[in-house]
Amino acid sequence: MTSVYLAMICGVIAVIYGIVTSGQVLRQSPGDARMQDIAAAIQEGAKAYLGRQYTTIAIVGVVVAVVLFLTLGVLSTTGFVIGAVLSGVAGYVGMNISVRANVRTAEAARTSLQGGLTTAFRSGAVTGMLVAGLGLLSIAVFFWYLTGPSGLAPNDREIVEALTALAFGASLISIFARLGGGIFTKAADVGADLVGKVEAGIPEDDPRNPAVIADNVGDNVGDCAGMAADLFETYVVTLGVTMISIALLIQADPAELMRLMSLPLIVGGVCIVTSIIGTYAVRLGRGSIMGALYKGFFTSAILSIPAIWFASTLVLGDLGATIGGAGFLAPGTGAITTDMVPAAPAVGGTGFTGLDLFWCMMVGLVVTGLLVWITEYYTGTNHRPVRSIAKASETGHGTNVIQGLAISLEATALPTLVIVVAVIAAYQLAGIIGIAFAATAMLAQAGMVVALDAYGPVTDNAGGIAEMAELPHEVRERTDALDAVGNTTKAVTKGYAIGSAGLAALVLFGAYTTDLATYFPDLTVDFSLSNPYVIVGLLLGALLPYLFGAFGMTAVGRAAGAVVEEVRGQFRDNPGIMQGTSRPNYGRTVDLVTRAAIKEMIVPSLLPVASPIALYFVITAVAGQASGFAALGAMLLGVIVSGLFVALSMTSGGGAWDNAKKYIEDGNHGGKGSEAHKAAVTGDTVGDPYKDTAGPAVNPMIKITNIVALLLLAALAGSGS
Amino acid sequence: MTSVYLAMICGVIAVIYGIVTSGQVLRQSPGDARMQDIAAAIQEGAKAYLGRQYTTIAIVGVVVAVVLFLTLGVLSTTGFVIGAVLSGVAGYVGMNISVRANVRTAEAARTSLQGGLTTAFRSGAVTGMLVAGLGLLSIAVFFWYLTGPSGLAPNDREIVEALTALAFGASLISIFARLGGGIFTKAADVGADLVGKVEAGIPEDDPRNPAVIADNVGDNVGDCAGMAADLFETYVVTLGVTMISIALLIQADPAELMRLMSLPLIVGGVCIVTSIIGTYAVRLGRGSIMGALYKGFFTSAILSIPAIWFASTLVLGDLGATIGGAGFLAPGTGAITTDMVPAAPAVGGTGFTGLDLFWCMMVGLVVTGLLVWITEYYTGTNHRPVRSIAKASETGHGTNVIQGLAISLEATALPTLVIVVAVIAAYQLAGIIGIAFAATAMLAQAGMVVALDAYGPVTDNAGGIAEMAELPHEVRERTDALDAVGNTTKAVTKGYAIGSAGLAALVLFGAYTTDLATYFPDLTVDFSLSNPYVIVGLLLGALLPYLFGAFGMTAVGRAAGAVVEEVRGQFRDNPGIMQGTSRPNYGRTVDLVTRAAIKEMIVPSLLPVASPIALYFVITAVAGQASGFAALGAMLLGVIVSGLFVALSMTSGGGAWDNAKKYIEDGNHGGKGSEAHKAAVTGDTVGDPYKDTAGPAVNPMIKITNIVALLLLAALAGSGS
Repeated sequence: MTSVYLAMICGVIAVIYGIVTSGQVLRQSPGDARMQDIAAAIQEGAKAYLGRQYTTIAIVGVVVAVVLFLTLGVLSTTGFVIGAVLSGVAGYVGMNISVRANVRTAEAARTSLQGGLTTAFRSGAVTGMLVAGLGLLSIAVFFWYLTGPSGLAPNDREIVEALTALAFGASLISIFARLGGGIFTKAADVGADLVGKVEAGIPEDDPRNPAVIADNVGDNVGDCAGMAADLFETYVVTLGVTMISIALLIQADPAELMRLMSLPLIVGGVCIVTSIIGTYAVRLGRGSIMGALYKGFFTSAILSIPAIWFASTLVLGDLGATIGGAGFLAPGTGAITTDMVPAAPAVGGTGFTGLDLFWCMMVGLVVTGLLVWITEYYTGTNHRPVRSIAKASETGHGTNVIQGLAISLEATALPTLVIVVAVIAAYQLAGIIGIAFAATAMLAQAGMVVALDAYGPVTDNAGGIAEMAELPHEVRERTDALDAVGNTTKAVTKGYAIGSAGLAALVLFGAYTTDLATYFPDLTVDFSLSNPYVIVGLLLGALLPYLFGAFGMTAVGRAAGAVVEEVRGQFRDNPGIMQGTSRPNYGRTVDLVTRAAIKEMIVPSLLPVASPIALYFVITAVAGQASGFAALGAMLLGVIVSGLFVALSMTSGGGAWDNAKKYIEDGNHGGKGSEAHKAAVTGDTVGDPYKDTAGPAVNPMIKITNIVALLLLAALAGSGS
Repeated sequence: MTSVYLAMICGVIAVIYGIVTSGQVLRQSPGDARMQDIAAAIQEGAKAYLGRQYTTIAIVGVVVAVVLFLTLGVLSTTGFVIGAVLSGVAGYVGMNISVRANVRTAEAARTSLQGGLTTAFRSGAVTGMLVAGLGLLSIAVFFWYLTGPSGLAPNDREIVEALTALAFGASLISIFARLGGGIFTKAADVGADLVGKVEAGIPEDDPRNPAVIADNVGDNVGDCAGMAADLFETYVVTLGVTMISIALLIQADPAELMRLMSLPLIVGGVCIVTSIIGTYAVRLGRGSIMGALYKGFFTSAILSIPAIWFASTLVLGDLGATIGGAGFLAPGTGAITTDMVPAAPAVGGTGFTGLDLFWCMMVGLVVTGLLVWITEYYTGTNHRPVRSIAKASETGHGTNVIQGLAISLEATALPTLVIVVAVIAAYQLAGIIGIAFAATAMLAQAGMVVALDAYGPVTDNAGGIAEMAELPHEVRERTDALDAVGNTTKAVTKGYAIGSAGLAALVLFGAYTTDLATYFPDLTVDFSLSNPYVIVGLLLGALLPYLFGAFGMTAVGRAAGAVVEEVRGQFRDNPGIMQGTSRPNYGRTVDLVTRAAIKEMIVPSLLPVASPIALYFVITAVAGQASGFAALGAMLLGVIVSGLFVALSMTSGGGAWDNAKKYIEDGNHGGKGSEAHKAAVTGDTVGDPYKDTAGPAVNPMIKITNIVALLLLAALAGSGS
């Protein structure tokens, strides 16, 4: 129990860091009255949107909570509510600091680049540490309550179910937040660009554009709040499923189980500390801005190595000792459970040691580093992919898009190879549990990764405010330099989140098969690839990301079209806007996008909730329960096998398109205003919903499908069917 | 044996139909001297390209043949050579008639729309019947030789290996032809459009454009020859794998096996006859052009119902009798073979009847009809998808591409559901064999489907010739009307080919597991989804279509860029070209595209050949042979699970983009020359390599991966490792 307390303390440290650093940011000057005016309009729009979004989600949440209460009881419902509320809080707090830091970043950038960087990065770090801290606290406190005051054994079914429900709460909120925020931000962005840059010929963030405030609001509700909710979810699901797997798969006495289950928590805890130390390493020096951010990232990653070693020895004592003495537990009697035991040669037939687990976590760290490097390669302006898109822009819109699509397809290859090698390595070391710990070590870096990401929208907003408040030219140049890096860091987070989902997929499937064997011990389910119901499940699972992507893209296209017409209408009805003599009605555009985003997010978000349930019941009706469970299990893997590629291609491709435009704007291939630049703007527009709406929302979608399946099993077992 | 002879007679009928109808087409007037000049240039370019393509492929083919001879012996090598040569012949003959029919179609369109339609469709029908006829003859004659003069039993391993090698030959040629032809046609098309329509502002097919002949050559070598080779492959693989599955799975005396294995052949035979009858039903009447083509398609499909009934009773006698008396054979002793037996409840525990097989084939016919209908919905100008893209063009290039991508993602949903339902239905009726027969019935329609497809490039060329030879305006209008329908029929063939691959995937995997059990009876291979090596195989298999698509898109982009620079150079060096006073150097552009296409096709075509072999050896080295086979098997399904979606989304999306442009050109959303039209041209350009290069080549890619795995098993077994 000591280590659970220690994890809780680390979580509290993260929250304190957040409060203290928020104070530092807020104490900075918010600039002149004009800047404060603009910032207030952005704040108001962001709060109004999040308010309506959360109200809508709350209705869905209450319905789901009632269903959970009736089927799985009070503990699971509590877990669901904790996950849901804290996921919402993570997003809300992130938005709240970023709408205040934006104007302060613009003001600080008046003096120096370092000033702007510090303010923006601090604001990002607040969000990052709160995501990690709240995530850790939610699981640690809940786990403490369940095993302490409630007196449950660590591998009690009720704990497994309650932790699953906690993850479900986080996932459900995050898919709505990711998708709703994503639709908002890209509808506003694409709409503003089309009607402003392309039609009216006015620059980005020009105050005459009625959609400009909506565009800036979007950065905060999508790229900040939506992203924070998503990473909170990834954090909670990964740590949660690692603990669940230990409970399900390891045969040991309760005290040893307790120790082992607290290991993911304490690893998360120590890495919060290393992340906090890392934030202080972010300094410009003589290098680039990206270099400054990397200093922070690598400091925390490298410090994590001894920190994880410390955590492991603290919890496990002698790392050389075999864990779980008698080896693996084969729960239930179903034939499938033997699949859960790692192949005998891999672990010497007797389980694994603490040292094996340590190496698995090192695999996770290496994966994180490689994914960052690959993303940088595919989306940075210094490498072949982005430059090839910029070059293709010379021959027109068509070749720009063709090359961008080629890069987005290609960008899936290296991350897949990294994930595959990591799966093999971790599995050879410690089986399914090893894969779970690799994923845990990846997510333990979340504080720093989210900090890098949340920095992006702040600088984007700062640029907008500088433009609208007509600050001196060099201020906008500084914020632009800060913002360019944000494109890459945003892509990094998405690749990282989906990569960890790739690792976690096998663990989630392991939980599913073990649950199945526990709840339905007499049922033999054939998960072999030669079972046609497995193929049916794989195909339908693979379809989900495509259909979901189609919904997301259509929603952005439709909402952006509405923005274009609204703005055209304002220009037509009020010619003073373009002359600069009268102010556009920003609020009406914000309101329009808000309504569109809320409306469009609902159906696609429910798709991954309803699909596994529908599949199970249809196939069970046609071919019996064993086939139903086989198809359902295969759907879980189909959705990751296809979702990994859809998400990686969309997020990398979108980032590459965006930076190809920036590369041209830096004076290459004809620079701003050239034909190549126009083609690059088209590519950027296409990449927007790819990278910020459809692509990133695939990550929570995969988790939800998996978690709904786990809860469905528990509910079916409870109802005795 | 009677039915094998009957199938051979039907194959001969198809060839005779081809010769007679070719004669009819060739006897028509080839137009005036100018038209003949242009047509001669196209012919010359097409022959030169195919000559070089086949020379290159021949080198690869000889290497592979030697490897096969050394590992699998003379029969398999013979099969490989037959498949390879005939696949090449199918493509060559198709090209040969279409480069002669194009100018005759233009000439016939001078008189009437019906005249143009008849000539173009007859030329397509020649290709269609030769594809089906040669496909059928190749298997039927080879099978007759093996079971007759060679005296082998129908389920002898040598027959299984030889038929697999025949399929491999067809697949290997077809991936090169599909990809090489696809790169050629789209590089020329995109390049010509970019530099002509977009930069120089001259219309499509303007004789001043130096790339115009290359563009027309491309239609013949890509859309006609490449497509014909691809469908030949699909035909041979589908019928072949159905026969192989019967040999592997059904326990019966040789005479009954012989009868059953000849059923796919005779079904193919009778459907050739119904397809020929269907070709005579293609008449304009009062309806649309599409309606006229549909009359042919539905006539042959509906006549196929009694024809298949006749074939089934002829071969099996009493359709109510259970097939294979004692039920299924469980070959070898490996645990996995039990998976191959259909679930007991589905088939009453005693096998299936001839009537069950008949119904499975009806499932195949229904799937064909539904896929045609769905493709028409997603790519026809009368429905929501195309119109939504046209509407989105009003707000610019970006929204056009976003909506097109959304439609391409969405377009995967209905075909997947159709395939899933068909898999379940056919499996419930007659297990894996039922699925195989459903796929066979689909492919039995190939004569008519290929006819509809091959009609497209002829009309496309006819339009080009009409434009270049300055025929009266109404001629071009007629050829345009004929060509617009070609976009949809081309998309139909691709959806149909990949849909049949979806059905055949399980059958191919079944062959793999059965082979495995036969060759390595002592090895227990775990194909369960909880085996991490299965996940590794699924992920790497899923990666292949993405990587392959990236290669294809990049190749087109790069080659098109080279065309743009070549044409710009010609305009610059010879100003007389644009004034119409001097003739551009068409040959140099054709030559440039030829070299580019040949160079770019090689690496991606070898990807699906090398990947399964590499995966097997790497995983075997890391984790043992059982894991290697598990990963390899999973790769086979990963490639179809991902390839199905990549191919469907690319081919449907590309077709929709193309027709959205045509819909605008018909006078909607501002018509030709409007901003919406420019945006739609961008979408069309993006869709070109999607629908004609990367997308369709995924189909042979999937088959190759599967067949290479089967041959690898046989080779490993032969070498005793």
